Amino acid sequence: MSSSLTLSTGDKLPSVGLGLWKVDPSEAPSLIQSAVDAGYRHFDCACDYGNEDAVGEGLQAIFDSGAVSRSDVWLTSKLWNTYHAAEHVRPALERTLRDLRVDALDLYLIHFPIAQQFVPFETRYPPGWFTDPDAAEPKIEPAKVPIQETWRAMESLVREGLVRNIGFSNFNCSLIRDVLSYAEIRPSVLQIESHPYLTQEKLVRYCQQEDIAVTAFSPLGAPSYVGIGMAEKEESVMNLPEIKAIAESHGRSPAQVVLRWGVQRGTAIVPKTSKPERLKENISLFDFELTNQEMQTIASLNRNRRFNDPGVFCEEAFNTFFPIYE
Amino acid sequence: MSSSLTLSTGDKLPSVGLGLWKVDPSEAPSLIQSAVDAGYRHFDCACDYGNEDAVGEGLQAIFDSGAVSRSDVWLTSKLWNTYHAAEHVRPALERTLRDLRVDALDLYLIHFPIAQQFVPFETRYPPGWFTDPDAAEPKIEPAKVPIQETWRAMESLVREGLVRNIGFSNFNCSLIRDVLSYAEIRPSVLQIESHPYLTQEKLVRYCQQEDIAVTAFSPLGAPSYVGIGMAEKEESVMNLPEIKAIAESHGRSPAQVVLRWGVQRGTAIVPKTSKPERLKENISLFDFELTNQEMQTIASLNRNRRFNDPGVFCEEAFNTFFPIYE
Repeated sequence: MSSSLTLSTGDKLPSVGLGLWKVDPSEAPSLIQSAVDAGYRHFDCACDYGNEDAVGEGLQAIFDSGAVSRSDVWLTSKLWNTYHAAEHVRPALERTLRDLRVDALDLYLIHFPIAQQFVPFETRYPPGWFTDPDAAEPKIEPAKVPIQETWRAMESLVREGLVRNIGFSNFNCSLIRDVLSYAEIRPSVLQIESHPYLTQEKLVRYCQQEDIAVTAFSPLGAPSYVGIGMAEKEESVMNLPEIKAIAESHGRSPAQVVLRWGVQRGTAIVPKTSKPERLKENISLFDFELTNQEMQTIASLNRNRRFNDPGVFCEEAFNTFFPIYE
Repeated sequence: MSSSLTLSTGDKLPSVGLGLWKVDPSEAPSLIQSAVDAGYRHFDCACDYGNEDAVGEGLQAIFDSGAVSRSDVWLTSKLWNTYHAAEHVRPALERTLRDLRVDALDLYLIHFPIAQQFVPFETRYPPGWFTDPDAAEPKIEPAKVPIQETWRAMESLVREGLVRNIGFSNFNCSLIRDVLSYAEIRPSVLQIESHPYLTQEKLVRYCQQEDIAVTAFSPLGAPSYVGIGMAEKEESVMNLPEIKAIAESHGRSPAQVVLRWGVQRGTAIVPKTSKPERLKENISLFDFELTNQEMQTIASLNRNRRFNDPGVFCEEAFNTFFPIYE
C-alpha cells in the first residue's frame, strides 16, 4: 500500500493530509509545525475555513526553518461559492496564495456546486454563506453562474501555472459527467464526505473509473460534527463493537482502523485534529493492513448518514432550503 | 384538490396521465381508446418506449372519431440519450411528432442526464442503450455533449412552436440548479421515480420552490419492475398493512391510496396499466381525500428504494457501470 495516490496528471497526492476546517487561527501555526514533525506533508485548506493567513504563517515558519521545502508539501485550497464568476476566480486564488505565502497550489477545488452572490474582498473575508449576515433574515443568495464558466476559469489557473491540479468538492456523478463533457483540463480530484457510515461506493467507483482520485473529508464521521450540533455523540462509528474488535485484533485504536479502511480502499483522507498525540495516531496507518473480510465488515456499516449537508441541516440557521445532494 | 397542475408557463398538466412505458405496440391503439374513454387526457410517451408510432395510431383514431380534439389532450415525450447533440435534437423531436401524428408536443423532456453516441435513425429506431447491440460485449458509450448544449436546442424547439414546455427526467438538485443558471427558457417539469418507498421529499420540495412541477413515474413502485426482474413481488408497497388499513377506511383499493397520496402531495403521476378496469381505478382519485395523518403515514414508509437505476442495476446486462443518481 502506497502512501500517496498518483493523479491523472502524474502528481502524487499524499494519502493522509491534515484537514484545517475548524482549526482556530491562533492554533494554526503551531499545529502546522506539529503536523510536519509528525510526518504530514499534505494540508487541506479552504478560503471558507477562515484561517489561511494563520496556516500560511505556519508554512512560512517550517519553510524558513529548512525542515521541509515547498516541493515537499502538498497544498490544497478551495474556491468559495461567492467567487464562481469568471472574473472572481483568479482574485480568489490570489488571495489564498497571498495568505498561504506560496506562489502556486498543488490542488484547487471548487468547494461546492453552488454559486452565490459576490461579496467584495474588502467587505468581508471569508464571506461565508450570507451576502449580508446583518440582514434581519439572512439567506443563501444564489448567483446564476454556470459550472462551465467556473471550470473554464479554473482551467486558466492551470495554464497560468498558478495551480497544478484542479477538481471539485461535493459534486455527484451526473455533475461530474457533465463537467467531463466540456473539460479541456480534466478534474484530477473529487473531495467528498466519506466514512463507514457514508461509504459512497458508487461515487468512489465512478471516479476511479474516470481516473479522478477521491479525497474523503470527515473520514472519522460524527466526531467532526458533535461540537457544532450536527451529530450526536452516539453516532460515532468508533463506538461500534465491529470496529472495536478489529482494532483490538490489530492492536490499534478504533480511529486508526477507520482511517486505515479509508486509505486502503484507495481514497486519500484529511482527518482534523488539534492534539499532537492524535496527529501521530492519525497518520500511523501504513504498518498494518486490514483483511478483505475486515474491509467488507467496515463497508457494510454504511447507513448513508451524511453529516455535512449545510443547505438542508442548517435550514433554520440559513433561512434557506438549499439541497445539494438530492 | 385540482386535477391538474398549473405550470410556470401557465399551461395545465393533468395530474394523472397514462404511462406508456412497456406497452406493447400491438396493444397501444386500443389502450389509448380505452384510456380516453376512462377519462385520461394525458399521455406520457418517449422515443425509447418503442411504441410512439402505435400510440400515434391510437391518437389519430380518437381525434378522427371526434371524441376529443388535440387541444384536450396533453402529450409528453422524451429526447433519447443518443440525440443530445444540438444537431440531433430537432430531428429526434420531428420523428416523435411524425410517429404521434401531431404538430407539436405539450411537453418535451430530456430523458436522462446522459449523452450517448449518436445512432443514425435509419440504423435503428429507437436506438436504446447500445451503440452496437451486436457487439461481442455491447456497452453504454457516452458522448461528450454538455447538458447546456442540449438545453439550448430544447429552447429552440419552444421558440419554433414545436413544443410548449420543456423539462427533464432523472435530474437531481445540483444539475437542475446548474441548468437554471443558464436557462433562457426555464424547465417547467421534472419527471422522476417516486412512490412511498422513494418519496424524494427534498427534490420535490426544491422543485416546488423553483416553480418546477414534478411528475412521478412508477407511482405504484415495485409492480412496474417485478416482470423485468428489477424488483421482488414482496417489495410492493400495496401489501403493507399501513396501506391496506388506509384503503379499507376509505373503501378504496391500496393502489388508489398510493396514487392519491401522489397527487395529493402535489405531484402529477403517470401510472401504467394495460387493463381497462385498472385504467378507471387509477384515475378515480378525486372524490376522496387522505388526512394529514394518513399522508404522513404513507410518506414515512420511505426506504429510498429506487427500482429504476439502469446504469447500476443493469450493470451486468450493459457491461457498463454507469451511475446516475449517486
